[in-house]
Amino acid sequence: MAAVKSMQDLFLHTLQDIYDAEKQILRALPKMAKKAGTGELKQAFEQHRDETQGQIERLTQVFEMLDKRARGMHCHAIEGLVEEAKEVMDEVEDEQVLDAGLLSAAQAVEHYEISRYGTMIAWAKQLGLNDAAKLLEETLEEEKKTDQILNKLALGNVNRKAAA
Amino acid sequence: MAAVKSMQDLFLHTLQDIYDAEKQILRALPKMAKKAGTGELKQAFEQHRDETQGQIERLTQVFEMLDKRARGMHCHAIEGLVEEAKEVMDEVEDEQVLDAGLLSAAQAVEHYEISRYGTMIAWAKQLGLNDAAKLLEETLEEEKKTDQILNKLALGNVNRKAAA
Repeated sequence: MAAVKSMQDLFLHTLQDIYDAEKQILRALPKMAKKAGTGELKQAFEQHRDETQGQIERLTQVFEMLDKRARGMHCHAIEGLVEEAKEVMDEVEDEQVLDAGLLSAAQAVEHYEISRYGTMIAWAKQLGLNDAAKLLEETLEEEKKTDQILNKLALGNVNRKAAA
Repeated sequence: MAAVKSMQDLFLHTLQDIYDAEKQILRALPKMAKKAGTGELKQAFEQHRDETQGQIERLTQVFEMLDKRARGMHCHAIEGLVEEAKEVMDEVEDEQVLDAGLLSAAQAVEHYEISRYGTMIAWAKQLGLNDAAKLLEETLEEEKKTDQILNKLALGNVNRKAAA
């Protein structure tokens, strides 16, 4: 992390962080989709992978608005969250239990993103970057919707089957 | 992570993960409180440190309910989230901007916990561990309240001063 002297610097740093995070998520989701046993869960991961690609595109636009080159800075938080998903994939033997674990890991990722985008929208507005705030709000809505879809799957079927 | 064969195993694993996470948070909060410039933010971190101690105590009780020894398993996700808070503390020079960064890092931690406790409550209920679910719900409410307090601070004063 380069020395951060202003709120603009902090905003840019966080943008680079979430840009890297989304790219890590883009790589992890196909693996999670492959491992998922329930068709609906597989589909949710695949759909969110496509959404993630659009979210990366929006971040690229925000970089452009700041007149900066789009580049990531390694996001430790997502690394840890993805590591947890990998652990689940490596260690859980039962397919139903694996689905419950994958869902939980994916929801933790969504919550991280919801928190980060919430922060960035507040900062963008404070800095008068209203067009950037609008783009980030579109992504935030998608992340919230994904979390709701995952939650519905967890409470609807996946946890019940896993505990059976 | 030991081989997970059942939903009970997964619940226990996640309990060990969040137990370690809370202990990492307990160590990080005093450092964050020390660095915080705004009195209200310092106070929010100190108060949440005390709450965290109570939350660890509740987790110990859940271990007892499962007839298991309370022990942590290294939580990679929180390690990454705490690492981000450390980066902010090391690199941000301006005190007001530092507060905005610390708040954002703390909210990311809260969201991780909200997600994890939400999952664990759903699993506990599915497994018929209703007393455990009740204890975990108490903690979830505290985490949500902490996130709201932080959000109010961010939107009220901290971000405005940081962008000034």
